Amino acid sequence: MRSSDNALPGAIATPVAVILAAGEGRRLRSGRSSLPKPLVRLRGLSIAERSVAQLLAAGVERFAVVLGCDATLVQHEFERVARRRRCHISFVEAANWRKGNGCSALAAAPLVGNSAFLLTMVDHLLTPEMIRKVLADPPAQDEVALAVDHDTENVFDFPDLTKVEVTEGRIAAIGKELTTWNAGDTGLFYCSTLLFDGLAKAHTHGKFSLTDGIKECAAQGGVRAIDVTGEAWLDVDTPEAFREGIRRIDAAMAKGGEDGFVSQYLNRPLSRRLSMALSRTRLTPNHITLLSFFMGLLGAVGLATTEPWSWIVGGIVIQIASIVDGCDGEIARIKLLQSPQGAWLDTVLDRYSDVTIGLAVTFAASQLHDAVWVWPAGFAATVSFLMASYVTKEFQIRFHRPYPNNLINKLKRRDLRIFVIAVGAVMGQPLVALLVIGSLTHLAVFQILVSGRHCTVVPSQVNRPRCTGPPIL
Amino acid sequence: MRSSDNALPGAIATPVAVILAAGEGRRLRSGRSSLPKPLVRLRGLSIAERSVAQLLAAGVERFAVVLGCDATLVQHEFERVARRRRCHISFVEAANWRKGNGCSALAAAPLVGNSAFLLTMVDHLLTPEMIRKVLADPPAQDEVALAVDHDTENVFDFPDLTKVEVTEGRIAAIGKELTTWNAGDTGLFYCSTLLFDGLAKAHTHGKFSLTDGIKECAAQGGVRAIDVTGEAWLDVDTPEAFREGIRRIDAAMAKGGEDGFVSQYLNRPLSRRLSMALSRTRLTPNHITLLSFFMGLLGAVGLATTEPWSWIVGGIVIQIASIVDGCDGEIARIKLLQSPQGAWLDTVLDRYSDVTIGLAVTFAASQLHDAVWVWPAGFAATVSFLMASYVTKEFQIRFHRPYPNNLINKLKRRDLRIFVIAVGAVMGQPLVALLVIGSLTHLAVFQILVSGRHCTVVPSQVNRPRCTGPPIL
Repeated sequence: MRSSDNALPGAIATPVAVILAAGEGRRLRSGRSSLPKPLVRLRGLSIAERSVAQLLAAGVERFAVVLGCDATLVQHEFERVARRRRCHISFVEAANWRKGNGCSALAAAPLVGNSAFLLTMVDHLLTPEMIRKVLADPPAQDEVALAVDHDTENVFDFPDLTKVEVTEGRIAAIGKELTTWNAGDTGLFYCSTLLFDGLAKAHTHGKFSLTDGIKECAAQGGVRAIDVTGEAWLDVDTPEAFREGIRRIDAAMAKGGEDGFVSQYLNRPLSRRLSMALSRTRLTPNHITLLSFFMGLLGAVGLATTEPWSWIVGGIVIQIASIVDGCDGEIARIKLLQSPQGAWLDTVLDRYSDVTIGLAVTFAASQLHDAVWVWPAGFAATVSFLMASYVTKEFQIRFHRPYPNNLINKLKRRDLRIFVIAVGAVMGQPLVALLVIGSLTHLAVFQILVSGRHCTVVPSQVNRPRCTGPPIL
Repeated sequence: MRSSDNALPGAIATPVAVILAAGEGRRLRSGRSSLPKPLVRLRGLSIAERSVAQLLAAGVERFAVVLGCDATLVQHEFERVARRRRCHISFVEAANWRKGNGCSALAAAPLVGNSAFLLTMVDHLLTPEMIRKVLADPPAQDEVALAVDHDTENVFDFPDLTKVEVTEGRIAAIGKELTTWNAGDTGLFYCSTLLFDGLAKAHTHGKFSLTDGIKECAAQGGVRAIDVTGEAWLDVDTPEAFREGIRRIDAAMAKGGEDGFVSQYLNRPLSRRLSMALSRTRLTPNHITLLSFFMGLLGAVGLATTEPWSWIVGGIVIQIASIVDGCDGEIARIKLLQSPQGAWLDTVLDRYSDVTIGLAVTFAASQLHDAVWVWPAGFAATVSFLMASYVTKEFQIRFHRPYPNNLINKLKRRDLRIFVIAVGAVMGQPLVALLVIGSLTHLAVFQILVSGRHCTVVPSQVNRPRCTGPPIL
């Protein structure tokens, strides 16, 4: 079960993203392995890959990575990411990275030319929504924009937070030492080349951190605040932050509110645990989609025989396939690999799987009973599964919104139908189960058909007048 | 077969539309019946209803009708239209309508207050696109906007055209008598109350036509041109224009480019003739949808017996049902009754009809042959019909564009599958026909599944980067 986040806003020309990956990451390293921080894996994805993937998901397409500590290893990892995610990454080594991250940022100057660019730290987990908010609000010619979070009470690792004082939308002061502040520095910037001027100026004063450069820019009123309060972001700097990162990735695994009954209480809790385990492997979401599909077919073979013990095995296998079917979407969300192509494969194969299971149960019953009604009944029941999927798609296209996940929708969902057939098979009555869930599904489809007759098109999306809408019969 | 024109731009606050319906319509009347012009029917819809329906389709929701000649009859007709189309129409009688249409327009002043309003003539056929263009370009405070057509060579009844001279987007001169002009007056205005000032001024000079009022407004530079060149519009003023109107309505019946092979060469030519005839009746598109559906079920009953003569009847009936299935959309377009609810009913019932026909053919074959493969084969073939409809809907949702009407799409369309089964039934081989078209449809669905795996999301619609797109398997 997988859905892709398709409803994104219109195209925006996207700038280069400069990723600072020069630091030593000492605090994290002490608690973990001796790997350079960008190579450390968070739920199967290196921190380097996460930093690129979250920007890709927001629409950024070109990257410039500043190297420093362990430059060769880190560059090698980013090159792997570029191949895997099919994007372009250029590299520059910061000679003086040890002095401070301001030196690292300054090293990127030759790579960005005169264009505005995003600036982010490799070890910051950001949501694509937060990045999109910043992208939508580019800086003026001589301006640096900084994404700030006003909800500082909920910032993880508050003592380490760089505080900012925002006055009328501009940064008046910035620093860890501030005594009055009203927001936190999220570490995501959208900069003009003014930043390099500020950094160079700070250098002449013997100050080498990025914050020092920003202070210089702010002193001439050149730093604007972009409010991203409410978006999740995390500086993965310490072992505690690392654990918090995993917790957040796991929390983002759920699709949220779209599941049916069986999925919610049985399949999801199991598939989430399975996904966490599978995320450590090299299996992609598409591998899982195919695995679940073939398990479904295998289960159908078990159901197609006339042996009740084989039905038990088949029933268990299709239920496990249904649980595994949740993992493709979960792993896609964990590893930031969501794609419409993946969701497409998953949903279409699910339909073939449904039909095969219905066919198998009906075939087995027809071998055991000579009654003329067995085939038409099994046929009609199986058809309901396809109709159920079809009507919600058709509904979405006609009325410009998804059919709500109400009781009717949950009754016709795949998790329930597979579960009912699996239970029926284990209890030695697969045909009865098929006919029961098929009848229920037909009723749900009929209810959706009727509801669509009284549906109006959402006015905010389509300027279709109420008057031409209602059926004239 | 019906599709609703859903892809409209975002919501626009719509003004009142003033419809001038006060005139005598002498030129049309002489050639037709003695009915007042707004009551004359064009392909089953009175001219009054067309004038309201085309505005409704463009998003206008409130109407003010100016009455004059045969006021009671005309008001009665508009009241019927308001009930049928569920919209609000207010009325005003122009005392001096005989003097000129300027007097009629002036009579609307109390109904519109200080708001901008559309002004149109009851006997003008306009496309909803043309009206939307004008709605998208509202007049300034003291301005009248006039929709003009620069392609005057293709205006019907050119000698009767009111010519305009457009200079830098403003109307410099207007009148039938102009010797130099570069556009034609389409009779669709978007006015501020400046119009009433212009009309009142013309009155004081003893001039009572709408054009006289516009001349006064234009004299002070207050008339802007909205270019609607390329949009179809027609002043239904004479018997010749009336015939041209019917010709254009008939031309608009076709959906354009979306039909399959059988539809294009067999079903459409027949259904169009049928729709022209049915448009004279009170049958609505939804009646036709239900009629076609029940004819399909009836044909399926014929196919479900073991008698070859019954198959012949059943085959003929399902093919006729398939032809009638084209009429609902055609009549909706003829009578401006398109609705997403109607399209929804039609497409979902088509799926039930397909399944019933497949079930019927398989049932009949299972009674004649004792082979174990008959049911699974018929079952699998029928499933392909649902999969074919499902994948194109799913494709549209995932990739934000309809699946193209290419060869693959045409091979899996309903017109072809019904035709093949009908021909097979008439030839005494319905099961063979079902299996052939089912196999073909499965191949087409598989091809669509594969093509979706390599599909990218349209960048203009969704800001989803290329890089996260391609499958990583």
